Amino acid sequence: MEENKNILKQWVLSAISHRSAKELKEIFETIPNIDIAEAISDVDDPKTLLYIFHAVGSEYSADFFTELSSEQQEAVINAFSDKELIDLISDSYADDIVDTIEEMPANIVSRVLKACPKDLRGDVNRLLNYKENTAGSVMTTEYIEMKDSVTVKDAINTIRIKGKDAETVYTIFVRDNKRTLVGTVELSDLIFSDENAVLADIMDKNFVSCNVNEDQEDVAKKFKRYDLTAMAVVSNENKIVGIITVDDVIDIMEQEVSEDIAHMAAITDMEDPYLKTPIYKLVLKCVPWILALMVLQVFSTMILSGFEGEIGHFAILAVFTPLIMDAGGNSGGQTTTMIVRSLSLDEFSGKDYGKVMLKELRVAAIIGAIVSAFAFGWLMFEMGIGIVNTSSIVDKINETGGNYNVYMTLVATLVAATLFVTMIISRLVGCSLPFLAKLLKLDPAVMCGPITTTLVDVISLVTYFLLWTQLIGPQLGF
Amino acid sequence: MEENKNILKQWVLSAISHRSAKELKEIFETIPNIDIAEAISDVDDPKTLLYIFHAVGSEYSADFFTELSSEQQEAVINAFSDKELIDLISDSYADDIVDTIEEMPANIVSRVLKACPKDLRGDVNRLLNYKENTAGSVMTTEYIEMKDSVTVKDAINTIRIKGKDAETVYTIFVRDNKRTLVGTVELSDLIFSDENAVLADIMDKNFVSCNVNEDQEDVAKKFKRYDLTAMAVVSNENKIVGIITVDDVIDIMEQEVSEDIAHMAAITDMEDPYLKTPIYKLVLKCVPWILALMVLQVFSTMILSGFEGEIGHFAILAVFTPLIMDAGGNSGGQTTTMIVRSLSLDEFSGKDYGKVMLKELRVAAIIGAIVSAFAFGWLMFEMGIGIVNTSSIVDKINETGGNYNVYMTLVATLVAATLFVTMIISRLVGCSLPFLAKLLKLDPAVMCGPITTTLVDVISLVTYFLLWTQLIGPQLGF
Repeated sequence: MEENKNILKQWVLSAISHRSAKELKEIFETIPNIDIAEAISDVDDPKTLLYIFHAVGSEYSADFFTELSSEQQEAVINAFSDKELIDLISDSYADDIVDTIEEMPANIVSRVLKACPKDLRGDVNRLLNYKENTAGSVMTTEYIEMKDSVTVKDAINTIRIKGKDAETVYTIFVRDNKRTLVGTVELSDLIFSDENAVLADIMDKNFVSCNVNEDQEDVAKKFKRYDLTAMAVVSNENKIVGIITVDDVIDIMEQEVSEDIAHMAAITDMEDPYLKTPIYKLVLKCVPWILALMVLQVFSTMILSGFEGEIGHFAILAVFTPLIMDAGGNSGGQTTTMIVRSLSLDEFSGKDYGKVMLKELRVAAIIGAIVSAFAFGWLMFEMGIGIVNTSSIVDKINETGGNYNVYMTLVATLVAATLFVTMIISRLVGCSLPFLAKLLKLDPAVMCGPITTTLVDVISLVTYFLLWTQLIGPQLGF
Repeated sequence: MEENKNILKQWVLSAISHRSAKELKEIFETIPNIDIAEAISDVDDPKTLLYIFHAVGSEYSADFFTELSSEQQEAVINAFSDKELIDLISDSYADDIVDTIEEMPANIVSRVLKACPKDLRGDVNRLLNYKENTAGSVMTTEYIEMKDSVTVKDAINTIRIKGKDAETVYTIFVRDNKRTLVGTVELSDLIFSDENAVLADIMDKNFVSCNVNEDQEDVAKKFKRYDLTAMAVVSNENKIVGIITVDDVIDIMEQEVSEDIAHMAAITDMEDPYLKTPIYKLVLKCVPWILALMVLQVFSTMILSGFEGEIGHFAILAVFTPLIMDAGGNSGGQTTTMIVRSLSLDEFSGKDYGKVMLKELRVAAIIGAIVSAFAFGWLMFEMGIGIVNTSSIVDKINETGGNYNVYMTLVATLVAATLFVTMIISRLVGCSLPFLAKLLKLDPAVMCGPITTTLVDVISLVTYFLLWTQLIGPQLGF
């Protein structure tokens, strides 16, 4: 892969240095644009880039341009004459132009907008104004719309004429006299139908559309649910204003997933590629969460320090607190992850909370039993073979007498019993918080993990020390 | 949404009870199949289901059938006569049949296979034999293939005749005399071309295909990279054996993401919907990891217990160990998540390790400085206003004398200094392990999180207690 890229780069550069437009064209005919763009991603000499555009001509220019890095795009735009820029822009789709200029300096933006034909400029401006992550911000305005009284024959002719400028010709959007969207026709339906039929007869009336202000995540869900390849975006008056195609949806899904994963790991977001994100931004994404979680940790610190006396008298108690806190954190994290994912895939809704809780309770009881039994054995082993320093037990026995095995068994019992409670609490909390977040219309992925950990930490530490001071400690003369 | 579902259900059931086939057909004409299937998902009376199939006829049967739950599908197959089953199966695609029978009891599987026409049965059997998660296991065998010498006119005619049985008519796969795949033609290219041209002249030679044994995740990446709607799956001899369409890819992406998310949270996998997963499976998915991580924790337990003497003498030391361990875990988790995600999106490859490490080192130094400065202030505050019990400091002062503020400041300094080291170590470890996993050809998402936490715990605890015993403790007369 890496090697292919280098070979391709050498090939492209050699064609450029020979000034062989024919060879360059051949490369573009046999290799996808994105692979070529990636091979020369570190070439930023404007003259070299310019030669490619001159050589390959309008058939590939616009597509190839969108695959370049924003630095390269900037260099190309600066090197282009006004005429060349107008040619390039006229071959581009409005949504690609928006993607390009969103990250450009103001002088470039205004030069690009000036180069747009009037109707394209209107589209670009409108797209720039939609709120981020709405259907409007990802839609494209190049689609084919026809009246429902058009015949199949005329429809195919119109596609032949206008199709080259549309993002897809496979779905034709059908409107009535009032410009309201009333149906869709697949190109294949046109091919299979009698050429004198009118669109109203063959169109799909059970089509799915979305509102221009709808969240892009919901749009992606509709595509998945209904196996669509293109969907109309309509205004509040049910007039079509744009379309979204399935390749946009794949990008949306990836973006939304990155967001979810980031939130679950307490990172603000991961919208830009790692290597392109400046250092200060990486710091800003991570550091606030670490500080916030540190502040949240005050509760477990308070509880631990409240039992400082007990720890001072029997230090082995402190040795096992991280084990309990970690196990609770891991177990809560597992539940939260499963529930958040199921909620985001719409596997269940808020009203299934009771059903889920009941299931979790049974799962938790089994896990609690297994984990505490295992922990008991594991701790006896650790203390038995001396992995864990038991000098605080020995000190205590020297002071007040008693049997070493009894001490060991009761300490292991204390930890095991606490873990049983911790497993149950962690799963119940871990499954309730995402539902609560959903009820409050918050993103369940945000903060559920850390808040679960904090709550579980507090409850399990209190359980641990209460079991010790009330039940187990007294039996050992504390 | 919930309400719409109920209304739709009432409507469908009322149409059935009136025996109004016309009304049912109207429902199917205006509402997508999947919405109808979902509305009646708790209807499992075979007679009711059967009536729907009789009423709506072959136009909707096969599609509607694939949207039913497997319990409903089983009931329908059992209630169908052999003739009805043959009709239903003949209208279905091979990959949908495979999806259906994969979860059915053996007697149903054999009845369905018997109902398949001979060539369809061959396809189904072949699909059933491909390894899970390969291109072969998700592809479909209903596609349109033509020779490169066919004219545009003949091609369109062939599509008119054979198109109804194909999963997509928008991409036509072109082969030469030796049955080798040599290009693809989009239906739109046919529409735009002269009808006497031959496919060899207008086909795309820079098409992308995949091998039948290729991992489905790589297939999805190709779709995304090249904005495809359909892709040929070829044998090792470069003969086309099936196709994958973009709606399959959306399902693949979702499945792969669920897998990644599950692995990062230390869950074995999440392939089935939560509510449908039996309790013992949920336990098996979660409990091994909790036990394994508990065993891994032995190292930090050993270190903590090794310093039991220090803790016994100055219990406040134990109070801050969870804070340090949590901060390290959170910070390592953030880095691991970013790097794993970037690796899985192919943002960088193994050879970028040096570049990434250098960047992480700089990010970590800044985060370390901020976090340790904040922690110093926060601990002075906690101890100053008495949130943290400082009785072990007071005890020590009563015993050996000394200034309370000096104690407080040195303890806060100890924690802050440890955190600085922890932040740097956690990010470097968190970014190295995914690269190591990739080098060893393991899934970076699996285990990187837990192993990072374990390593960072050990290093930060050692740092903490070494700083105390070697530097800070002696100044306070320990």
